[in-house]
Amino acid sequence: MQIARFKAGGKTRYGALEGAVVVEYSGTPFTLFRRGRRRYPLKQTVLLAPVVPSKIVAVGLNYRDHAKEMNLPIPEEPRIFLKPATAVIGPGDPIVYPPQSARVDHEAELAVVMKRRCRSVPAARAREYVLGYTCLNDVTARDLQRRDGMPSRAKAFDTFCPIGPCIATDIDPNAVAIEAYVNGELRQSSSTKELIFPVEELVARISEVMTLLPGDVIATGTPSGVGPLEPGDRVELRIEGIGSLWNTVVKW
Amino acid sequence: MQIARFKAGGKTRYGALEGAVVVEYSGTPFTLFRRGRRRYPLKQTVLLAPVVPSKIVAVGLNYRDHAKEMNLPIPEEPRIFLKPATAVIGPGDPIVYPPQSARVDHEAELAVVMKRRCRSVPAARAREYVLGYTCLNDVTARDLQRRDGMPSRAKAFDTFCPIGPCIATDIDPNAVAIEAYVNGELRQSSSTKELIFPVEELVARISEVMTLLPGDVIATGTPSGVGPLEPGDRVELRIEGIGSLWNTVVKW
Repeated sequence: MQIARFKAGGKTRYGALEGAVVVEYSGTPFTLFRRGRRRYPLKQTVLLAPVVPSKIVAVGLNYRDHAKEMNLPIPEEPRIFLKPATAVIGPGDPIVYPPQSARVDHEAELAVVMKRRCRSVPAARAREYVLGYTCLNDVTARDLQRRDGMPSRAKAFDTFCPIGPCIATDIDPNAVAIEAYVNGELRQSSSTKELIFPVEELVARISEVMTLLPGDVIATGTPSGVGPLEPGDRVELRIEGIGSLWNTVVKW
Repeated sequence: MQIARFKAGGKTRYGALEGAVVVEYSGTPFTLFRRGRRRYPLKQTVLLAPVVPSKIVAVGLNYRDHAKEMNLPIPEEPRIFLKPATAVIGPGDPIVYPPQSARVDHEAELAVVMKRRCRSVPAARAREYVLGYTCLNDVTARDLQRRDGMPSRAKAFDTFCPIGPCIATDIDPNAVAIEAYVNGELRQSSSTKELIFPVEELVARISEVMTLLPGDVIATGTPSGVGPLEPGDRVELRIEGIGSLWNTVVKW
């Protein structure tokens, strides 16, 4: 199933993406979720960020190809940091290039959306707590990240967390192709097979630190090929089985 | 005014702390907030964290005395990071010492509670967006902070963000005494006069990066004297005009 959050007829709704239509569901994917009768042509809807997380836990340096490219050792533990929920935008929304930065990068990532509250879940049971997977662009002001010596501010700007277009519930998160395009040109191309800590391990390690709530998002890290964005650019992420998330970049 | 959130008669309510009583208010401090008639003896209530933030933005190295003690240069910009809302606990709640760490420190901080949504507020108008101030213990697994080379995980554990006992609306946040005691022994003692970036400047700089929402919290940094906690310890913060926030430390 591909769960979408969308606007149609002036209202925000949940539904299932089925080709060129969205089938409305009542309730939420975290509680009761029931298929309804109404169907909307996809073209007459506006897709929103498929989830409104209470927190976004991101993981640094989690692809073998990226670690190799950077000449960095494989980390022994996931390096985690947080992005604020105020950074979230949806498919098609503009990424705003902030005046404080002169170097803003795209980072294509597979994101895990949690379904149930959990704390200290063993990896073997982690998938029971996951709703599904979506695309997430961990937009980063690289110059500020270097200057601060830590990622928090550089990744916290409003609009720096596009997610979408839907939450795919039935993919194998550890074996899908992941790509980023800028103005149609391929910039990142890898597979989640390259993940150093696979999804189950991330849920286990992060939930050993903090309680994960329904709707919380884990951004699993980016593969090699991150690079700059400029105002006017169109950046698109594609993950196999999830679809395409594109956004344009605009000046402050 | 000293705004409290409390439990009495099985319900969670807002009110005003007035000596040994809590006067009930209807609504919330972020919307309509109206004084009611009911008064509860403080002893028959349980004070809760006075706010449930959507995010907690914390500032590193923001006291002159602390920078001096650490032999570190005065930063040119606030060094910000995020703590998750799942870390928040209230007055009297236990701080859980996690099995991953062998060194957990207290950090006494003045916290700013936002009243209104804001983005890119100039410092001169920052106070219009602030509801008030409370005590916040930015509990930190120091060994993990050193190992990770960044503060995110070390400060994100459940229970690592005690706040309370109330939100004081009428203090001068840049000129109050701040202290931490462990088992009655004074460990931190300073004044917010030592803040490198005062409250107005922090609201301005942080809101240049991200939208601050009603109830969001800014932890303004800790003065010199941070030190270890052990299971069984009782840690107490005192800030002039706000009151005392104490918590015990328990084993995982």
